[in-house]
Amino acid sequence: MNEYDYESRLEVRLRDIDFMGHVNNAVYATYLEQAREAYFRDVLGVSLVDVGTVLVNLEVDYVHSIDADAEVTVALGVPELGESSLPIEYEIRADGDRAATARTVQVVVDPETGESRTLPTEWRRRIDRTG
Amino acid sequence: MNEYDYESRLEVRLRDIDFMGHVNNAVYATYLEQAREAYFRDVLGVSLVDVGTVLVNLEVDYVHSIDADAEVTVALGVPELGESSLPIEYEIRADGDRAATARTVQVVVDPETGESRTLPTEWRRRIDRTG
Amino acid sequence: MNEYDYESRLEVRLRDIDFMGHVNNAVYATYLEQAREAYFRDVLGVSLVDVGTVLVNLEVDYVHSIDADAEVTVALGVPELGESSLPIEYEIRADGDRAATARTVQVVVDPETGESRTLPTEWRRRIDRTG
Amino acid sequence: MNEYDYESRLEVRLRDIDFMGHVNNAVYATYLEQAREAYFRDVLGVSLVDVGTVLVNLEVDYVHSIDADAEVTVALGVPELGESSLPIEYEIRADGDRAATARTVQVVVDPETGESRTLPTEWRRRIDRTG
Repeated sequence: MNEYDYESRLEVRLRDIDFMGHVNNAVYATYLEQAREAYFRDVLGVSLVDVGTVLVNLEVDYVHSIDADAEVTVALGVPELGESSLPIEYEIRADGDRAATARTVQVVVDPETGESRTLPTEWRRRIDRTG
Repeated sequence: MNEYDYESRLEVRLRDIDFMGHVNNAVYATYLEQAREAYFRDVLGVSLVDVGTVLVNLEVDYVHSIDADAEVTVALGVPELGESSLPIEYEIRADGDRAATARTVQVVVDPETGESRTLPTEWRRRIDRTG
Repeated sequence: MNEYDYESRLEVRLRDIDFMGHVNNAVYATYLEQAREAYFRDVLGVSLVDVGTVLVNLEVDYVHSIDADAEVTVALGVPELGESSLPIEYEIRADGDRAATARTVQVVVDPETGESRTLPTEWRRRIDRTG
Repeated sequence: MNEYDYESRLEVRLRDIDFMGHVNNAVYATYLEQAREAYFRDVLGVSLVDVGTVLVNLEVDYVHSIDADAEVTVALGVPELGESSLPIEYEIRADGDRAATARTVQVVVDPETGESRTLPTEWRRRIDRTG
């Protein structure tokens, strides 16, 4: 059973809509990235732009299509931290209903060498406090 | 062990590159969609624009980052057909090396009712012949 | 001298940032489209999704780059209405400073025939009241 | 009268198509950027990724909508070089017909200081030879 500890809102853009008339499947990955950025900023106190993280896995289960005028929020939670990996579980909600569930795994890397490194202790502390 | 029966080439756009200097993670989903469109056109003789399919699952394992000047191809294969679902396995290759593996599941729907329907027999025949 | 009668806020996404580290030039056009959608919804009481309009001209003067963490608003005004064309002037602002000015011309078309048609009287009334 | 000295091909992606069923207006700017990148690589022998240029002006006249299955090329020419500015005129063609005309002005900047600098002599020589 998932527990989501954090929720952020985002705006659907007309540009997100595709030839089928709904939010394009690839845009869901952008919504997840945007939710990660909000979580990093609000909970970890850093921006994804400034820290070196690399996405290693993405999985999305599409439940319901999202319309242009939907109110979209993304709820997320961190199930368990690895040594250098940060897994996140998500639920994308459109007008309050589940539109998709998703999981990502990120790895923290050294910006210089590109090699994975241990998750900062400060992050662990902040994530535990939120969860 | 995966077998890929079809391969298509695509162009990396500068717009695909993100703040990290590589192809953005969400763009991989667009590359998969583009490969599906090529496969549908070349093997099934239809365009995704004209047939009603809905993506129900997407999974991507990111192996290596993709640079702006990389030559990218997407190899794909259909492991086994469901009643109304079409699973596809992919390998995204940059300059010949594996940059990502991925899986999607699509469902064929009736454009009028939106309900899933049986895969067309003609598609089964063409997919079997390619695999 | 421009007068902007309407202003809407939008969120910069990480995906908007390009290899140069700033919002990509093409994304400005998306910001303008998003501002038009907000204006149509708030002032004209319709969605761009539901009415048939076609963009015939776009011009952007880029003044200052936009960073990922900027607060962006788009101010806009309608200088003068044509018979079937709706010109709009914009100022894109990042953290309160002018990042770009822009102009677009849209034409209202009949969704069936694709031919231009006279601007609805109700739109003229609402636009005049706002300006 | 425009003269276009260089032409490059690009692929329409399904993701380029918007809720209206045609290539989205903002994507035209991406097509122009992609054509510039091809021109820089082929004619100037450099990549936009490696040189510091900033777009200062963009203008697009939309003539005809572009469908998902269109063959798109972008023809371009350099009308006259400024001290530090590189103006380019374009024609976007879909299935051989003019879909849009466009103009951009880029400025070459020093990557360190961000200040504009004189166009490299080598570029002038190569541009003159092509035109």
